[in-house]
Parts: sequence; C-alpha cells; structure tokens
Amino acid sequence: MPQTPDWVKQLKPSGAQGHELLAKERAGSNIPVQKLEELLHTKEVIQRRNKITELLKSEPVFDKSQNYFMGRTDRFERALAREKKLRLLKKKHNWSYDEFRAATELVGEPGPYGLHDSMFKVTLAGQGTEEQQQKWLTKAENYEIIGCYAQTELGHGSNVRGLETTATWNEDDKTFTIHSPHLTASKWWIGSLGRTANHAVVMAQLIIKGKSYGPTPFVVQVRDMKTHEPLPNIHVGDIGPKFGYNTMDNGFLLFNNVKVPHISMLAKYQYVDPNTNKFGRRGSPALVYGTLTWVRSTIVMQAGSVLARGVTIATRYAAVRRQFQDRDARAGEAETPVLNYTMVQIRLLPLIAATFALHFTGKSMMDMYQANQAKITQPRNKDESKRGAGPEELESGSDLMADLHASSCALKSLSSTIAGEGLEVCRRACGGHGYSSFSGIGTWYADYLPTLTWEGDNYMLTQQVARYLLKSARSVLNGERPTNDTTKILSEFQSRREIGCAFDVIGSDKDLVDAFAWRVAFLTFEAHKHRDIEKKPWNDLLVDFYRLSKAHAQWMIVKNNLSALQAIANGNQVNNDTVEVLMKLFRLFALHTLEQEGSEFYASGACAKHQIMLARTSAVMKLLKDIRPHAVRLVDAWGFDDWVLDSSLGRADGKVYEDMFHRASELNPLNNITVDPYPQNDVLFKRIEKSKL
Amino acid sequence: MPQTPDWVKQLKPSGAQGHELLAKERAGSNIPVQKLEELLHTKEVIQRRNKITELLKSEPVFDKSQNYFMGRTDRFERALAREKKLRLLKKKHNWSYDEFRAATELVGEPGPYGLHDSMFKVTLAGQGTEEQQQKWLTKAENYEIIGCYAQTELGHGSNVRGLETTATWNEDDKTFTIHSPHLTASKWWIGSLGRTANHAVVMAQLIIKGKSYGPTPFVVQVRDMKTHEPLPNIHVGDIGPKFGYNTMDNGFLLFNNVKVPHISMLAKYQYVDPNTNKFGRRGSPALVYGTLTWVRSTIVMQAGSVLARGVTIATRYAAVRRQFQDRDARAGEAETPVLNYTMVQIRLLPLIAATFALHFTGKSMMDMYQANQAKITQPRNKDESKRGAGPEELESGSDLMADLHASSCALKSLSSTIAGEGLEVCRRACGGHGYSSFSGIGTWYADYLPTLTWEGDNYMLTQQVARYLLKSARSVLNGERPTNDTTKILSEFQSRREIGCAFDVIGSDKDLVDAFAWRVAFLTFEAHKHRDIEKKPWNDLLVDFYRLSKAHAQWMIVKNNLSALQAIANGNQVNNDTVEVLMKLFRLFALHTLEQEGSEFYASGACAKHQIMLARTSAVMKLLKDIRPHAVRLVDAWGFDDWVLDSSLGRADGKVYEDMFHRASELNPLNNITVDPYPQNDVLFKRIEKSKL
Repeated sequence: MPQTPDWVKQLKPSGAQGHELLAKERAGSNIPVQKLEELLHTKEVIQRRNKITELLKSEPVFDKSQNYFMGRTDRFERALAREKKLRLLKKKHNWSYDEFRAATELVGEPGPYGLHDSMFKVTLAGQGTEEQQQKWLTKAENYEIIGCYAQTELGHGSNVRGLETTATWNEDDKTFTIHSPHLTASKWWIGSLGRTANHAVVMAQLIIKGKSYGPTPFVVQVRDMKTHEPLPNIHVGDIGPKFGYNTMDNGFLLFNNVKVPHISMLAKYQYVDPNTNKFGRRGSPALVYGTLTWVRSTIVMQAGSVLARGVTIATRYAAVRRQFQDRDARAGEAETPVLNYTMVQIRLLPLIAATFALHFTGKSMMDMYQANQAKITQPRNKDESKRGAGPEELESGSDLMADLHASSCALKSLSSTIAGEGLEVCRRACGGHGYSSFSGIGTWYADYLPTLTWEGDNYMLTQQVARYLLKSARSVLNGERPTNDTTKILSEFQSRREIGCAFDVIGSDKDLVDAFAWRVAFLTFEAHKHRDIEKKPWNDLLVDFYRLSKAHAQWMIVKNNLSALQAIANGNQVNNDTVEVLMKLFRLFALHTLEQEGSEFYASGACAKHQIMLARTSAVMKLLKDIRPHAVRLVDAWGFDDWVLDSSLGRADGKVYEDMFHRASELNPLNNITVDPYPQNDVLFKRIEKSKL
Repeated sequence: MPQTPDWVKQLKPSGAQGHELLAKERAGSNIPVQKLEELLHTKEVIQRRNKITELLKSEPVFDKSQNYFMGRTDRFERALAREKKLRLLKKKHNWSYDEFRAATELVGEPGPYGLHDSMFKVTLAGQGTEEQQQKWLTKAENYEIIGCYAQTELGHGSNVRGLETTATWNEDDKTFTIHSPHLTASKWWIGSLGRTANHAVVMAQLIIKGKSYGPTPFVVQVRDMKTHEPLPNIHVGDIGPKFGYNTMDNGFLLFNNVKVPHISMLAKYQYVDPNTNKFGRRGSPALVYGTLTWVRSTIVMQAGSVLARGVTIATRYAAVRRQFQDRDARAGEAETPVLNYTMVQIRLLPLIAATFALHFTGKSMMDMYQANQAKITQPRNKDESKRGAGPEELESGSDLMADLHASSCALKSLSSTIAGEGLEVCRRACGGHGYSSFSGIGTWYADYLPTLTWEGDNYMLTQQVARYLLKSARSVLNGERPTNDTTKILSEFQSRREIGCAFDVIGSDKDLVDAFAWRVAFLTFEAHKHRDIEKKPWNDLLVDFYRLSKAHAQWMIVKNNLSALQAIANGNQVNNDTVEVLMKLFRLFALHTLEQEGSEFYASGACAKHQIMLARTSAVMKLLKDIRPHAVRLVDAWGFDDWVLDSSLGRADGKVYEDMFHRASELNPLNNITVDPYPQNDVLFKRIEKSKL
C-alpha cells in the first residue's frame, strides 16, 4: 500500500471539528441517553452486548477493515472462518443461547452456518422421530454434520405445493428415490448449501404407488464427509453473487434418482409403513401458525433496530456535514449543518420516529403472543370466576391468535418495507458520501432487502390480511359479538357510520389513533362490498387489499406506540421530558403518515380537508422543529458501537473526514496497482512494472 | 470449474417453456414492434446501434460473462481495457462522434476515461486560451495525456464557493502555489483520477495579494508521464469502493504547496497579468445556464431508457414466471404467469407508461432548447413582421430559456428519481430471483443512483424551481403579461380562482393535463402567500418547495406526453391501434400520478373527491386490463439486445431458468473452492487440498 505522506497526516478538517459539532448537539438536549437505551433494551441486554462486543473486537478474525474491499470468494471464506470462531468461542466461554445470538447479531453479516443452526436443526427437532433425532440432531449440534433446509426451487418460490422434486417409495427395497425431473426442480436459494452443508432437509413430493401425498421433508446427505465433494448423482453448488448477502452461500441442488433409506423421511407426524407400503399420519404438527406469528413479530421489532442503524449514521453525519447557509442567513456566517434544513429533517426525523414506533409495536406483539400462548395452553375458562369476567377475559385465545396472526402479516409487510426503504432514504440523505461503501449503509441495506421477500412476500402477505378482515366484516355484519380489537373497530364504525365521526387528529392523541382505526374499518367494508356484494374477481381487488393491509398495519403501529408510551409514562421509566419527546415522535410518525395517505383519510371521512392540510403545513413542521434538538441523543440511545456500525459517516466522535480518508488512503487495495493509462498500449490488464522503467 | 454432469444438461424447465410463453404474449398484441422502435429511436439510430453491437460482441475484451463475479480491482482493470479498446476501434473504423457515443453506451458501464473525454476536454476547450489548448487539448485528444476535472472536495459538494483548495499567485517567480490547507480540502469523488489520470483541471480559490477571486480552473499535472507515480508533494489515489460505479476510479487529491507556471490558470475569460500582478476579466463565459439546461434535458430522456431496461427485464420475466393460481381459478388449472396479477400490473405497467412519458418529455425539452437557442442567436425581432406577430412569436427567447431552465431542473429531479426508484420496483417485482445478480437489475440500479445526486442534487434543485415559480407568481400578480407557459397557467388560475374549475379528468385528456396545471398554480400561489405575505423563513418552506417542484415536473410530463402523442397521431407515424395504446399509457401515467397525489389535487380544487376515488378504483384498473396484453411488445419496442441487458430474467427468448442455471453452474468461480466445513478446525481460509486426502 502506498504510504500516506507526513504532510497529509498532519492535516485536519477545516472549521469546527466533528467531535465539537456532535458535542454541541449533545449539549443541546437533556434526554438521558443511558436511561432511554435501558428502556429500549434493558440493562441486562446492554451489559451482555457490551461484554461480547469487546471480546469480538479482540479476535483478529473479526477485524472488519477489509470487509468493504474484499471480493465474493474472500468475503465468503472470511465469513465461514468467523462462523467457526463464534462456535469455538461459544464453547470456550460457555455462552448461553442469548449470548450466542447476541454475538451473531453483533458480527452483523449473514453467515454460512445460518441455515444449519436455524431451519436444519429446528426441522430435525420438530419433525424427526426420536430415532431420527439421535441419528442426526446430536451430530448437527456438535457440527459433525452441517445441514441446510432445501425447499424453494428454481421455478418455485412461495408456492410450496408446486414443488417438483419427487421422493418415490420403492416397495421392493424399502427406499425412497429422490429425483429432480426438470431443471425448474433444482433446489435454489438454499442458504448454507452452496459450499458449506453436507446434509440437507429436502422438501419433496412424496409418491407411493403413483399417488402423491404432498411436500414431505427428507434428510439427505449431499456431500462426502471427508472430501466434501458432491456424492454421485448429486449436482450441488453456489447460485452466484447477489445484490447483497454475499457472505452466504445460497445453493442449488439436483438429484438424479438418488436412493435414500426409509429413515430419511422425517416421520414424527407422517410416515410410510414399510410393511404395508402405506402412508399414515400420527399426532398433530406443531402450531406452525403460531411460530410464523412469532417469527413475523420478531421481524417487526428488528425492523426498528435495522432502520436505527441507518438513521444513526445519517443523523450524526447531518450534524457534522455543513453546506451553504440558509438563504435568509446574514453574510459571512459559517456553513450550516445540513440537519438544520427542513428538507433533511422531513426525511430523517420521521424515520427516527419510525424506529421507536416499530420497536414498541414489535415488542407489544411479542408480549401479546406470549400472553395468548399461555392462555391457549390453559384449560378454557378454568378459573374464570377468580379472574373476573370482563369482556377481555371472555375472548377466546384462538380468536385473539387469529387476530394476532393477521396483524403480524400486515406488520411484517409494512415494517420491513419501512425499514428497507428507509435505509435508502438515509443513504441519500447523506448526499454524495452516502454512495461510498464507507457510509456503512449500502451493504447493510443490500443485506436487509431479502427480508421484504422471505417469511411471506410483502405483497403476497397482504392477501392473508384482507382475507381475515373480510371474514371479520362478515361476522360483524352478521351481528356477531366483537371478540377482538379488529371486530371492535368494525362494529364501532358500523354503529356510527350514519352519524359520522369528528376526530380531533391534531389535538388529541386518542382521536389520532381512532382516525386510523376508522380508515381501516371504512376500507374493510369497501372491500367487503366489492367482493361479497358486487362479486368482483379476487384478482381485481389485490391492489385494494394491499392498501387495506397497509392501513391496518399503520393503525396497529400508532395504537401500539401510544399504549406503550402511556405505560412508560405511568411506570415512570424515564423522566417526563423524555416521555414528552417520545410522544412527539409518536405524533410525528402518525401525522406524517396521515398526510402521506391524506386522500384515504379524507375519503373515509376520518379527517376533514383542513385537518390534512393543517397536519401537512403546520403540525408536522412544528414537530420537526421541536424534535430536531434531540435528534443526536435519540439515535445515541440505540447504543450502536462504532465497530458495529462500521461507518465513517456515523462515527460517534464525528471524525467523519479523518475516517473516510484513512480508509481510502491506507486501506484501499486498488491503490496498490499502477496502470498503464494510454490506450495506444492495447493490452489487457497490463500493469507497469517498476523494475522495467 | 466443476463440470455440469450430462444428466443435468439434459434437463428442461417443466411445463410451458419460456419461449412459448413469450411467443404467446407477442401473438396476443398487434403492436408493430419495429415501427414503434423506429418512432422512439429513428431507423438510422437503430441501424447504427445494431452494427456496433455486433462489432462489440465479436471483441473478446467486451465479453461480459465474468462481470457479475469479478471483484473491484479486476472490474476496474477490465473496464480500463475496454475503454482503451473503444478508442482503438474508433480510430480503426473512423467512427463519428455519434457512433463512438453509441458504442460507449452499449458497453453500459462507467469507464475510467469518462471524465477525460467529457469535463477535462470540455473545460480546456471552453475556458482555455488558444495557447493553452495547443499545449493540452491536442494531447488530450490523442490520449497522450489523460485528464480529469477536480472540483468537489471531501468537505464540499454542491457549494462550489466553499472550496478550500487555494491557488496563490507568486509575484516573485510568476507562478501559482496550489495548496490543500485542510483535510477537507482534499479533492474527492473525482472521476478518472483515482488510478487513470495524469492531469487534472483543479478548481481552486485564486488568491492575489491576500485577496480571493473565487474558484478558478487550473491545469495541473499530477502523475509522472512515464512511471505514472504521483509527482512530489501530491497525494493522489482512489477513494474506495462504492454502492455501484466500481468500474470508475473516483479519486482523491491533495497538494502540499505545489508550484505551477502562469500558463496553468485557464485564462480565456479571466487572467492574472504577470506584469501588473492584477486580476482581469475578458469576454463573457459561455452560457453555462444553457449547457446545464441541455445536460439536464438529456438526463430526462435517458431516464426513460434507463428505466426501460429494468421494465423490459421485469415484464418479460413476469410473463414467464408462474406462481399459484388465481383464487377464483378452477381446480387443476396450471399456475398463472404473475403478469396476470393486478398487484404485479400496478407495479410494472405505470412504469412502462413512465418510460414513454419520460422519453417524449426529454425529447421535447431538447427540441425546445434547440429552437430557443436558434431564436436567441438570431438578432432580436429582426424580421418580426415576416413571421407574424402571434403571442408565441412575441415571447422573448430569454423568458422561454428561463422557463426551460426551471423545467429542466424540476424534470431532472423528478425523472431521475422515477427511474432510480422504478428500477428497484422492477427488481422487487421479480420476486426472489430479482435479488440475484443475474437479474441484471441490481448493478444497473446501483450504477444509476449517482444521477439522483449529480448535475444538481434532486432535493437542492427544487429550490431553483420554486424560486422561479415565485418570481413568475409575482410577475402575474403585478399584472404583467404572460410570456411563457408557466405565467400563462398562473394567470389562467388567477382569473378563474373565484369561479373554480370543473375538469373532467377521467373523460377528457385535455382536462386531465389542465388539472395538473391547476394544481401547480394553486401550490405556487400558496408558496407565494407563505413567503411574500406571511414572510415565512425560506428554510421553513423547503418541503413545500420540493412538493411544488414535483407538481410542476409532473405537469410538464403529462403536457409534453400528450402533445407528443397528438403530433404522432397527426403525423401517422404509427398505426391507430398503437396510438391508442400509447394514449392509454399516457392516461395510466397521469391518473396513477393523480391518485397517488390525491390530497393535493383535492386541496387545490382541481378534482372532486369522487373523481379521485374513481381514478383509483376504476379508471386505473381498467387501463391496466387494456394495456396488459401489449406489455411484452411494448418493452420489446425499446429494442434492447440480450447482450446489452445481460440478464437471465429478461432474455428475449424467455430461457430464464436455463440461463440462471448456466451462470450458476458453469461460470460461478465460488464453485471452484472446496471448504473445510467443520468449526473444529479453526483455521482462516483453509481449503481442503485433495492431494492430502
């Protein structure tokens, strides 16, 4: 690497230094950062995180300095080395599950063991018999075998029933033949399979005597345990580079009539009797329904912190980066930090508000899920007399679960979209430097984008939400008693439909939330009219359904956000000033959303025209002004370590330019090559060799 | 590379083949693809493009098969090799400027000579004296020196006046000292500088006798002509990897009191007299104003074809990709192409509409620009009597130019945002496979994103538009006569303000455009009220200004789109059926925009509530249904060669899965490594060596 000359090393940024500017920002707000951080994460989680962060920083394999420069192969090999080290550290320090999870999250890149530790082991544990668990799960836990979960195919994503891979039962030798009849049957996108796994849970259509029994999981060894080369008649490899997620080896997998023994079919709930050659079922599969709700709720909560990384970077940099003066400024004034521009504020502050809103909403979903799970597992109405018989208590757990499931679909779709698109807003709010890899936003954004597609595609999911809301509308129209929040707001809307509403959306927080509920109810009954009365084709309504789901999710967020803040206020968890700022963030998120979706609020009658205009031109602008002084402390409260952010722009000490320069001048390997710049010398890849000059 | 086994090579995708599905699509529409392509590009341009495409394909250096796999250094070196080859081909085939430009565009990646051929030579030609041009321009044209344009600095982007690099005049030895006083003075983002250039036009604050004369261009040699190593007291290098644009070597540059001779300052319009040591000006600089208008108009037109690449890929793939059945479908039906889903249509078809709208708008801007330039260079009112004295003819060229300039700002901002964000919509509309590099959208999107920032940041530019519209409002309120389209619509609005309007936005194309104009006028006078009457601070209005500029650009697009289509219809350039489809695309773009911005249209009184709801729930949905059968032919008409698209998903023959598989299985270098998958062996980068097993 060329040396940075001494005269360069002595240079400093001009004017006020980054650390001075950030210090000034922090001095201008009284938000108790540590208290707020504890409110978000709890003291215990913060301590655990800090301890592990220091440990990881001290291990050379986790050194990040070449991350942004490495090509795909190096990135992948380094990621695998880090995954290995994490497992060894887990053993060495006897980490709990939570500690191990924390470490994985802190490393912050998709890793080649990802699907081994999640879906492979989960499926073995959940769908394997005891014998099968003994055969594979123990070894998997000891990393003696490395597995993955091979479901999606080249021609088949969301539609599991359409899978083409077959597993045909052979009566004669009591085996299954796994086969890929077409190119589109190739397993595709399978995480950890490309280079790492030697076993796979393969979802294949089970066929017995020519009859299909649907997609069924099989455990198949795909690579040799010693040479790690593919086994005969198996073609397996990495599917190639992606927009992001390149530390993961997503793979393909094809079978040419590969025989596997009877034990390969995971048989806890379904089996083939080798004597009768008949298919049978036993027990009832675990509540996948509930698991999905849980997974989606965690995505909602994560969306808050995923977005918070980008917002932290963009907000700190906006406080350090100065450009122009305000047009009304007096001559001779220094350039102003861009965070002072309302056009920057309108992009960043509603996203700061979103980070908190999504966090509180996700947390509340997870709390509700656990409470309901507990309720379901209790015998129904066991001790109803003791617990009192308020309407809340009479609700059946499963009605609540159905509601929670629909909410989790709507919220997964909206929150991951907010986080994904919000990260790109953050990147652009950083101006030109946002485009540099050193901003730390681009890679993070690119790695996050699959979340918008997996665990239910963000568009597909909205159909499930609409289906649930249509069902709820029918039940309300049939005069059934409301059993959960959704049917409650639908009933309320029905009863007041003729009278109309008069929500004080600017003056009352409760009315603001109710206006969101009113819009959901309006759109639900509109959808119901189109589908059930006008008998419109389902396909013609998909766009309406998408909007309906979005409206429902937005209502859930403002509702959960407000009740979380009320609980925080009542519990005296942070001081009143902080609660007041958090309330303003709630209002900013809600009013900004309301004005973005103005025509729907207006059409539903939830708002008058002048209220929407007022929200846009005055209320939102006033909130930006009120929140702006707290911006840096609010993002500080998310507690990201510089090592985690890996961003020149987002450094906690504001040394933006020093760090940009250091990485470009001292770490960038492209500066190791000297090219021949003249086209006259038409040679591929010719580098000037100094010795020849 | 591991071999693809024979049994795999024999596999085909299941069900209807991609080429059959695309053939069916094409059979379902009567749009004459070639005619429409000629309408967009002209026969001449198409022939030129096809000829050059074939030539490039035959040269090994332009082989793209490893593009998606290569790391930064390889990508850069390959890009430089391609740039060299293009210059040699230019010479060999005696290419015209247009042919050379076409070749560069066809290669489709930012190249390391980019800034040499544009800004370096343009600045020498425009701002150098004859002596200076002799010294540098001829050599630059022969690639004996390679240059770049070094303006922006680490701490300074849009604000040129804030540049920190100084050029101090030394009276004693008649030289300038170029110096970087701070780290933030480092030149940054300078295209072609990182590794390639040996000269730079450096913008520096000219200082004579302690007095500053503002940013001034200097030609400075930065690298040795033989060794290509940096000259003494110059620190220069590549700034590191970026979100995209990695085939370009954006560079940094610092000076430690580097002396350059008197001739270095480009002196066509400003000079330092070496005898008197005084600063002087001569002549008047070329109309930068006009050049920027031109550059921005080309960005508008390019935005159409940039987006068209993504839309072509996503539309073809949506016709090949099948998923689920419609919920209303009969049992046993095959899975349906996702293009049949309205949720896919609502994402792709308005973008197809946008490609044509942006193309026609950009073209019309460029035509107007050239017409006005001609008018300006003519002596004013020279032969007014001959040309008749209609109001059009009385307009002064400069009034028109000011209007065109403001329009070009508004349109540059909106059109590049539509194209950039539209590409990401296309990528996501491809579902999971959109995330693969082989989709061809990700790289294209990432490379395009800087367009949203350069040639005027898309947010900053909107202030210029607002300033112009405020000025226009003042002139109308002062009773001045309308002199261009903008003052016309403002006057019209003023005169009908009390009466109101009654636009038939669904039934009349003219009314639809007028409704967009009405909204612009309404927002302009609102902004005027806030600024001039209520005296609100400029900063408080930036968000309103942004919206105003967007509204203005949207009006320009629908206006230009409609008049272009009317001219096409009148000129019988394509058959009536095609004109009808293009008119439907116009309406789709306009009504979809109108319903997205519903609350502004409603607030301005341009539309009634029921019209907006009608647009949303019925008019737009009807247009989707009407346009859908033509979707594939419409994108075919853009005429992208498969080699240009470099996309598995967007192949003209529909062989999506074959191509995905080929790239993954036969081209992907990650499949050359065999890893040791077990964490027990804690070694960095250990690969299993077969010989040792």
